[in-house]
Amino acid sequence: MKSLSILGATGSIGTSALKIVRRHPDRFRVRCLTGATNVKLLAEQVIEFKPELAVVLDQDRANALARELAGHPCPEILYGEEGVVQAAQWEGTDMVLLAMVGAAGLKPALAAIHSQKEIALANKETLVMAGELMMAEAQKHGVEIIPVDSEHSAIYQCLQGNQIRDMKRIFLTASGGPFRTRSLDTFKTITRADALNHPNWNMGAKITIDSATLMNKGLEVVEAVHLFNVSQDDIQVVVHPQSIVHSMVGFEDGTVMAQMGVPDMMGAISYAFSLPDRLDLGTGFPDFTGMGHLTFEAPDLQKFPSLEFAFDACRQKGTLPAVMNAANEVAVAAFLKEEIKFTDIFTIISETMGRHTRIDNPELSGIIEADQWARNTAASLVSRISKIN
Amino acid sequence: MKSLSILGATGSIGTSALKIVRRHPDRFRVRCLTGATNVKLLAEQVIEFKPELAVVLDQDRANALARELAGHPCPEILYGEEGVVQAAQWEGTDMVLLAMVGAAGLKPALAAIHSQKEIALANKETLVMAGELMMAEAQKHGVEIIPVDSEHSAIYQCLQGNQIRDMKRIFLTASGGPFRTRSLDTFKTITRADALNHPNWNMGAKITIDSATLMNKGLEVVEAVHLFNVSQDDIQVVVHPQSIVHSMVGFEDGTVMAQMGVPDMMGAISYAFSLPDRLDLGTGFPDFTGMGHLTFEAPDLQKFPSLEFAFDACRQKGTLPAVMNAANEVAVAAFLKEEIKFTDIFTIISETMGRHTRIDNPELSGIIEADQWARNTAASLVSRISKIN
Repeated sequence: MKSLSILGATGSIGTSALKIVRRHPDRFRVRCLTGATNVKLLAEQVIEFKPELAVVLDQDRANALARELAGHPCPEILYGEEGVVQAAQWEGTDMVLLAMVGAAGLKPALAAIHSQKEIALANKETLVMAGELMMAEAQKHGVEIIPVDSEHSAIYQCLQGNQIRDMKRIFLTASGGPFRTRSLDTFKTITRADALNHPNWNMGAKITIDSATLMNKGLEVVEAVHLFNVSQDDIQVVVHPQSIVHSMVGFEDGTVMAQMGVPDMMGAISYAFSLPDRLDLGTGFPDFTGMGHLTFEAPDLQKFPSLEFAFDACRQKGTLPAVMNAANEVAVAAFLKEEIKFTDIFTIISETMGRHTRIDNPELSGIIEADQWARNTAASLVSRISKIN
Repeated sequence: MKSLSILGATGSIGTSALKIVRRHPDRFRVRCLTGATNVKLLAEQVIEFKPELAVVLDQDRANALARELAGHPCPEILYGEEGVVQAAQWEGTDMVLLAMVGAAGLKPALAAIHSQKEIALANKETLVMAGELMMAEAQKHGVEIIPVDSEHSAIYQCLQGNQIRDMKRIFLTASGGPFRTRSLDTFKTITRADALNHPNWNMGAKITIDSATLMNKGLEVVEAVHLFNVSQDDIQVVVHPQSIVHSMVGFEDGTVMAQMGVPDMMGAISYAFSLPDRLDLGTGFPDFTGMGHLTFEAPDLQKFPSLEFAFDACRQKGTLPAVMNAANEVAVAAFLKEEIKFTDIFTIISETMGRHTRIDNPELSGIIEADQWARNTAASLVSRISKIN
């Protein structure tokens, strides 16, 4: 029986994680659930999974949650970052699923590491912002970070039974998003609805836009550099529209191991929860002969400069990845509010990165400062651009 | 430093194995080399690798080998089955590579098992004939049999880091051979030269014909049943003309792990020699974006009934797989001598299997008897058919 704290329980990763718990109640117990604003769903989850702690964004929502739970056994209710940190280091929790979106996951991630919890990491921004720090802390505390992104889980799975020193290349697959075949000329007219219409994966809004810009893949490149301690030059992004091959690893002897499956986030989550066991998820296998082929192509860097930003951020390191990530968060939020055009996202990231004075080997405070600086810079760029548009 | 006995050193697997030894002289030492009739090549190998024992088919060839080695340090020279058995159980040998073609590998394989050598198995006929016996003996003597066929090596690699109980399906890939797209109507006019022209793999003549009939895949189905202790019903043959995916394993959670590489036998051999390490072989990775796609299709059982024979042999077990294998060896040899037509191979296997009175749980003597009976029966069918043709 493994006890879980699920941070970001009401998002798409969190709800998938709870599906797995629901399917395998003999294996998992939920100790803590945190959500930000979806109080109604969190209340339903609390009623079903009976955690000891529930956490929401603020005091108003904490009160609202208590009201929703009237007549049911009520767990301890906390709110804000401090509440999430409590959930991350909860006594009795074996594994923390970090499934919050964006930079908010950073402090809870470090809290979980310091409490020597097993970590299932779905929040890629924490590694992008503070990868060197996170991995150093994890090593210091003897904590293994198990990735929950389908791509990094695939890489992790491909490495099982192999020696890290034999890994020579990571083939990071990308669906290519909804605009893979769309002409660059028409990129300026891409709407919010166009960008939210992902061909293969059903995910939250922010990551769906990141998939459309391929910045999601850029963030994953940074994440892979940290998780697997490789150079960005050993990572090859391969566009694979069917999303059946979740990623691949090439070894010294020319072998390429691939992890495949139907596009469903449950696989990666459940693997992190139960490895080396694999749980029945009712998903079935890809129908190789039915689909007939798997295709692969190189990414179009003219259409998707976000990949270049990410490789550049990896090369320069220091605070630059955090700045890239923060600028992207601001730009994507503005695009979702229809304040800027799709292509403005690239402009804002590029300009913010260009203006940044990089610091090497930053402490947490330096990262948070750079993150804040980048948010301000990107916000002012959004404001300028939205006036022009 | 691992000491090797290479049984079948002058064949395609054997010479590939020696390429690996040549590339990694710090890791391997060759103790014994056996060949059947290619005395000249064996002599060159002996001069280069300086084994303690060399074995050939008969006394005449043993004398010829001694003459070829005049002026060089001469190893002990033996001949015949007894000589090969000596090489299999040679004192100081750590691993035996069983790369002889056909039923001749059976006694040396058992000798290696009884001497508790590590076994790298490239001779699929031994498992096909006597899979239950071989695996039972291996288990009894605590010997692991590491497959060297590229498909079974792929399956073995996909299983690393996983629990056997989570394996739900084996996807055994097949190139489809040279006649995948050829119309069934024209199968009767297939020539020896047509059949020896394999699209992807450069192998010996017997296995190349087996690839053309898909009997090679049938033999591999039987082999996989024994090696991985699965039911034939959990094995799906998938035609994959590019031969990049060497095979795949589907697990409980819907994950499919695939092992891929350029089509080259060195990968599987070197993995068996060095696992869990992987050695540089200078082969490079498949160029996924360059080739653009990997295709998959179901095998055509009308054109290639050999697959049905093999599944049937697995289902019925006992002496039937040995009979199928023996009839195939006789039929292929007759086809290579241009005594029978390509499609006669199927007829001869089918008729021989149909006439056989199966024995359950045979001893080695029962298997050898059934093998001999099948060879005689198939030979008389060859003789009858070649007169009609």
